[in-house]
Formats: sequence, structure tokens, C-alpha cells
Amino acid sequence: MLNFTHDSTARSWIAAAQAPGCDFTLQNLPYGVFAPKGRLERSRGGVAIGDQVVDLAQLAASSLLPEPAQAACSVAAGETLNAFMGMGPAGWQPLRHALFRLLSAEADPATQAKVRVCLVPLVDAVMKMPAQVHNYTDFYTSVHHALNVGRVVRPENPLTPNFQWLPIAYHGRASSLVLSGTPFRRPNGQSRAAGSQTPVFGPSRRLDFELEMGFFVGPGTALGEPLSLTESRDRIFGMCLLNDWSARDHQFWEMDPLGPFLGKNFCTSISPWIVSMEALEPFRVPFGRSDGDPQPLPYLDNATDRATGSVDVQLEVLLQTRQHRARELPGDCISATSFRHQYWTVAQMLTQHTVGGCNVQSGDLMGTGTISGPTPGEAGALVELSLGGTRAVPLPGTGEMRHFLEDGDCVVLRGWCENPGAARVGFGECRGEVLPSINLNAM
Amino acid sequence: MLNFTHDSTARSWIAAAQAPGCDFTLQNLPYGVFAPKGRLERSRGGVAIGDQVVDLAQLAASSLLPEPAQAACSVAAGETLNAFMGMGPAGWQPLRHALFRLLSAEADPATQAKVRVCLVPLVDAVMKMPAQVHNYTDFYTSVHHALNVGRVVRPENPLTPNFQWLPIAYHGRASSLVLSGTPFRRPNGQSRAAGSQTPVFGPSRRLDFELEMGFFVGPGTALGEPLSLTESRDRIFGMCLLNDWSARDHQFWEMDPLGPFLGKNFCTSISPWIVSMEALEPFRVPFGRSDGDPQPLPYLDNATDRATGSVDVQLEVLLQTRQHRARELPGDCISATSFRHQYWTVAQMLTQHTVGGCNVQSGDLMGTGTISGPTPGEAGALVELSLGGTRAVPLPGTGEMRHFLEDGDCVVLRGWCENPGAARVGFGECRGEVLPSINLNAM
Repeated sequence: MLNFTHDSTARSWIAAAQAPGCDFTLQNLPYGVFAPKGRLERSRGGVAIGDQVVDLAQLAASSLLPEPAQAACSVAAGETLNAFMGMGPAGWQPLRHALFRLLSAEADPATQAKVRVCLVPLVDAVMKMPAQVHNYTDFYTSVHHALNVGRVVRPENPLTPNFQWLPIAYHGRASSLVLSGTPFRRPNGQSRAAGSQTPVFGPSRRLDFELEMGFFVGPGTALGEPLSLTESRDRIFGMCLLNDWSARDHQFWEMDPLGPFLGKNFCTSISPWIVSMEALEPFRVPFGRSDGDPQPLPYLDNATDRATGSVDVQLEVLLQTRQHRARELPGDCISATSFRHQYWTVAQMLTQHTVGGCNVQSGDLMGTGTISGPTPGEAGALVELSLGGTRAVPLPGTGEMRHFLEDGDCVVLRGWCENPGAARVGFGECRGEVLPSINLNAM
Repeated sequence: MLNFTHDSTARSWIAAAQAPGCDFTLQNLPYGVFAPKGRLERSRGGVAIGDQVVDLAQLAASSLLPEPAQAACSVAAGETLNAFMGMGPAGWQPLRHALFRLLSAEADPATQAKVRVCLVPLVDAVMKMPAQVHNYTDFYTSVHHALNVGRVVRPENPLTPNFQWLPIAYHGRASSLVLSGTPFRRPNGQSRAAGSQTPVFGPSRRLDFELEMGFFVGPGTALGEPLSLTESRDRIFGMCLLNDWSARDHQFWEMDPLGPFLGKNFCTSISPWIVSMEALEPFRVPFGRSDGDPQPLPYLDNATDRATGSVDVQLEVLLQTRQHRARELPGDCISATSFRHQYWTVAQMLTQHTVGGCNVQSGDLMGTGTISGPTPGEAGALVELSLGGTRAVPLPGTGEMRHFLEDGDCVVLRGWCENPGAARVGFGECRGEVLPSINLNAM
């Protein structure tokens, strides 16, 4: 449902919010947790607008908000957003609407002056994990990704028979979730070369990224309490960008029969700003299935989800090597696609997660799985772009080539929504750099 | 290394600790978290002895403990044991040794009188989760289980090639961990009958238990910090019993290619008392591998682990149906085995978990995977005992039969260590009951 916060003609008195290509428009208002530079012990909730962050702790201490936005702001001002996520739409919507009014160019000058006191420049905000993620689940919902990878590892049967019937998922590792900008070491592990009987131990030689989005669970559920598709839609707080770094050589050796483990759990990166589902409302699109695909079972199907279950988030992957940085180049775009192509929707994912009785908690993070579109240039991982490491991916900016990631490589994910009737809503970026592995000969 | 707390001739002034078959002897002293009946808001750490619990909050407030045991007791007295687990052996050993002295029959009468004030009868202790488990991992380390299940689902290739090279594991769901005694509903989910093209949705018809043990991680690690096998041994706080309830029909339909998800995450039960690794020291045995098995890679191998990496914990599974309860029968023992048969040791599991850089946190729980011994009667799950549901398991006490669990069935796991040179050390029990599924036709 669209409302006044989706009015594309509305402008903010913060000029940068109207700059071309700005992700953090008045119509966006994404949530994060930050600490002002020099006061790093003081983490609090914030909302990005243009080149500024609204400090929600400061705002809560002002007398600018009506109830119930004031109560919601006090909760969102905490050291994590878990409690705010747990409030549900009854907390989320009043605060978002009140912030929109305060930041709109229609706010009177006295109000603007009072809000200005609550602003921290984005460049002075040190971003923190937005929530304490107690449980992290990663789905596998792109049919194009499943087919691309399936052709590499199971050419005789690339798509498993369950794919079109349920959103496949596995539990990920919550402890190794990190915020964009955190580098990580190339993992050590076991792999076995094709044709060899014996595995070897050492640094991954097939290190990869995975272009994903993540979504945060709002109000939790009790054990044994399933969520219908309608309920799930209202329980999702918002979305971010997610990079599910993967060591393909370790993963493919270890994953039969219980799935990925060390091949994934060394690091997963997320972007710091969570874009609310309300901000994404103008970009809702039908789910990414074709006419010939089987009808989902009734618990995974309703008219709303069919018509507007997906979101058209445009996504791109930049690869920046040491050579790019030495030449002050931004990196090369090696993939571009949209979230709209996913086979399953976020509501279907959350319903599937709870249908057997598994409880979810406020702040749980769910990854969508790698997002790959229908054409080769839309693949969301190097293992797909390089056809399993058999074809080098060119980097025109430096003339380098890549089959997999090398030390010093930095992967930057970007995402944004644009359409003619709406203001741009962007996610910022999710960035991570590969550091060399540590030497484990001493172990 | 054995010390005075392993002296099998030592006796406690609490008479019940010497009763035949008592799990909670002076040589055991397992840790848990409890609230005294009628004061349920006051959870605190406790130590079981005979038919009593030592209230560690009360003990910490007494002047009975020398340092550093006093400091450790204050930490262990908290609402969870996470912080105490994080202290490592430098906190664990002094407290255990001081408790042993206070509870020994050699303690002077004045001391006994002061300790007596800190006791709560076990029957008046409401047990709580011993730790806030941020991350739960389940391994797959019984070669007999892997072969038994493999013959059902992959007869042409029952043991995957990686099994003998690394302790296979997957991430489990931390939110649905429950304490022994908590019933759960039969899960709903998708399954597909053999030969059918289309799955169906409904209550699991192949609900199973899994006999496992769990171990808790002591001091955590930083991202990128691997633990050697020697380090891992010192980082494990203690062990409990664990039942990894499994819906086989849902699991086998969903798990290709990313592993179990809804088939497992509806509930996992643990026993309330954590037996310290020090208490298990007299029962250490060589790891359960055969001469013909491949030598582990160097990072998973050392002489200590080879000689004493496993533990001889005797285990049994009781199945108690509604009919057993109606006749006041305890249930029938349907499986009995020992933890000593596991192919991989707990230290190998923890080292494998960290070797790629994944960080662990104090209070993380790791399951060992189903524990099945070498003979058919030692299988740790119904899917094995019933040969994939093709042969009924008899329950002599009532004359009933089971292929899988029925509503009202209660599964009780028990574990204990006994050998001629040591006092008995037991785990108590891990109990759970299957409630009927909820009707999801309305969804």
C-alpha cells in the first residue's frame, strides 16, 4: 500500500538527499546502528538521509515526535535494532512517517533547526552491526543460480527435484557475520582434486563471493507457531545486501551429504543500512516464476504474493583488485542483475522457515541465496561467471583476469530501486577484502 | 590427567551420592542452571550432588571458598553458565576442586553445616537452559550411523568419500533448542513418496529421535583464529545428552543439495546437567577408528587424541508410549551403545570447526551426531533400527511395535560412565514427548 512517504515529488531540506544517484532519499530512510567518531562506545540507532545520519538517541531526547513515534524512536535508539524490529509495523510505520515529516522540505524552519542538532555527517558515523543476529539462515531461491551451479557439479541433474516445490535453505553461522568493510583471511581447509583419492589441506584456491540480499525478521514466534504467507509479509522488517563468501573447493568436498559448512562459515558480510519493506513498496513486482512452473502448494501461495511478492532491486558487483587501487580505479562491474528474478519471495521463505514449528526471533537474518538473472552476465558468483573456473572473467580496467578471487581483491555489492513513478531508494554498498591466509604449518 | 577428584574411594557426606546407580556422585559434580520452585525468576548456577543441588549463588555469598574458586563461583552463579564457560580451565578446575573438598566426607562438621544451607533438593529445582546458545552445530561422526543411514538412502554408495577425512557437520538451529522435559508438536512439512512426481504437505509420518551427545565450548576464539587439536581439548567445558529429533520424510525430500533444515529445526532437546571434561577423564579411551582406516591429516591428529581422544560413555534409549504410562511402566530400552565408537573425537570436531577461521563463542553447543555402535541393537535412531521403516521395532513391555514415533511417545536418553577403577559418573536423562501436530488447513 502506497502512502504519502512514497510521493516521488517530496523533497528534503537536506540538499544531498536530492543529489543524482543518492541512495538515501527522503523516501528511503534506512535504519542502521552507528557510533559517532571519537565516541565509539556510544552505539545507537540512526537513519540515513542524504549525507547525514539522524541520531535517534538525540531525536528521542528532543520533543519533536508525537506518540507513538516517540516510543518507537526510544526503542530504535538502542545499541541494536532487535527490540525495534520486534515492535512490528505498529512501531515501524509511525516512526518512519514522523521522520519523513521532520525531514521534508515542508517542515517549518524551527523544526528543521531542532532536527539539525540531531544530525551526524555520514562520514563521521562508524557503522556497527544493526542487530545481534541470534540465528542466520541462508536460502537458495534463484533458479538461474541453481541451474548455473548445478551444471558444474551435477551436469546430469542440475536442478534438484525439490527446487520448484519449496524454498531450499540451510542454517548459516551467526558468529561470523561481519559488517561491510571488515576484511577476512582466505580460509584454510580440505579439498580433493578431481581424480585424486586423497584430500589436501591448505588455503582455498577457489575463493568466491555470492551476491545476495538479506532480510531481518521483525516480531518473533513461539516454538510450534507457523506463519501464514500473509503474516510473514508483515513480519519482515527490511532488507540489506549480503555477501556469502564461499570457498568452492572446500565446500564441494565437504558438503555431501549435510550441506555447506567450512566452505561458508569463515565470513559473511552485510551492508550496514536496512531498507524497510515500506520504502520498497513502490518497487514490488510479481514473483519470478514462469507459466510452465508448478503451482506452489497452498501454504506457499496467495494472490498478493503472486502479484507483488518480489521486489525489483537492481544489483551490481564490482571487483576491485590491488591494481585497480594502485591506479585509483573504482573496479570493474562483473555482474548486474535484479532481485526480481528470484523464484521464491521473502514471504514464502519466512513461511517455509516456520511451517514445521521452528521459532524465529527478532533480528534473525535470512539470506536469499545467490541472486543470478537469466543471462550469463547476470550471474551472482565467480563459479558461474567463470563456468566452474574454466573461463577467465576479464577485468577491462586493468587488463587482469579472474577465475576466482585473489588476495587483495575487494568485492563491492551495490543495490538500488528506480522506476519512473518513484524516488530512488538505495542500499549503499557491501564491501569486503580478501586478506592472505594464515600459515597453519605450525598446527 | 587424574587427580584427587578422581579417587573412587572418596565419599560425600550427602548420603544419596553413594546410592547404587546414582549419577551425581562426588566425583561427578555436573553444572546446570536452575530456579528454586516458587522463586522461578531467580535462575542461578548449580552443581548436582546425590539428590541435592548446590546453589552457587548461595555458596558465593558464603565465606567457604578460597580464591580463585570464589571468583569462579561468583561467575558460575549467574543466570547462564556462558561467562563461567568462558573462564577456561583456570576457572573450572579451582571451583570443582573446592566443591569436591566441601562435599567430601572429610570436610569438618562446621563446614558441612555451612554448605548444607546452600543445598536445594533436586526435586525442588526447576531446571533451565544451562547456557544461552548463540550457535549450535551438529556433527556426523559415527561411521556405523553413516553406514546404516547410507544403506537406506544411498545403497550404491553408503559412506561418502569425505567421511573418513573430516568430521562432517552442519549448522543447526539455536532458537529451537529446548531443555529435557519440554514436549514438542509433530512438525508439518513437505514430503514426496517414492515414485511420485508431486510432494504432499502434512504432519511428518516418519518422526524419529537421534541419540547424541553435546559439548559446550569454553573460551571463544576470534574470527580467523584456528585451534590446534591440543588447544581444542582444553577449550571444551563439558558434555550433555542431546536428542536431535528428525522428521525423516521432510528431511530426505528437502536436503539435496544443502542439507537438513525443517527436518531437524523444529526441536532439539538437551539434558540439563553438563558433566565436565575433568569428571570424564577416568573414562578416556582411544578414538574409535580401525587399523585399515586412513591416517587423519596432520592438523586432525596427535598422539594424545589417538590414545585418549574418546570417552566411554554408556548410552541407552528408552521408548515410553502412552500404553507404558497407562500401565506405569518405565518404557522399553530400544538401543544401547557407547560413545567410544565415534569415528571422530570432540577435539577433532572443534579443531575442524575453527580451522577455516570460523569463530566460536563461549556456550556454543556442538552435537556429536547420532551415536550408533557396530551391532544392529546399538543403532541410535529408529530409521536405523527399523531399517528405513521396513521392519517394526518391538516394545516387549506393552506388545506394541514401532517403525517411527507416534503421538504421545516419550523418548528418554540416558548416559553414564563406569569402570572398575572409578566412581560412577552419570548424565541424568534427556526426555521429550511428541505432541500431535497442529492443523494447518486454515493456513
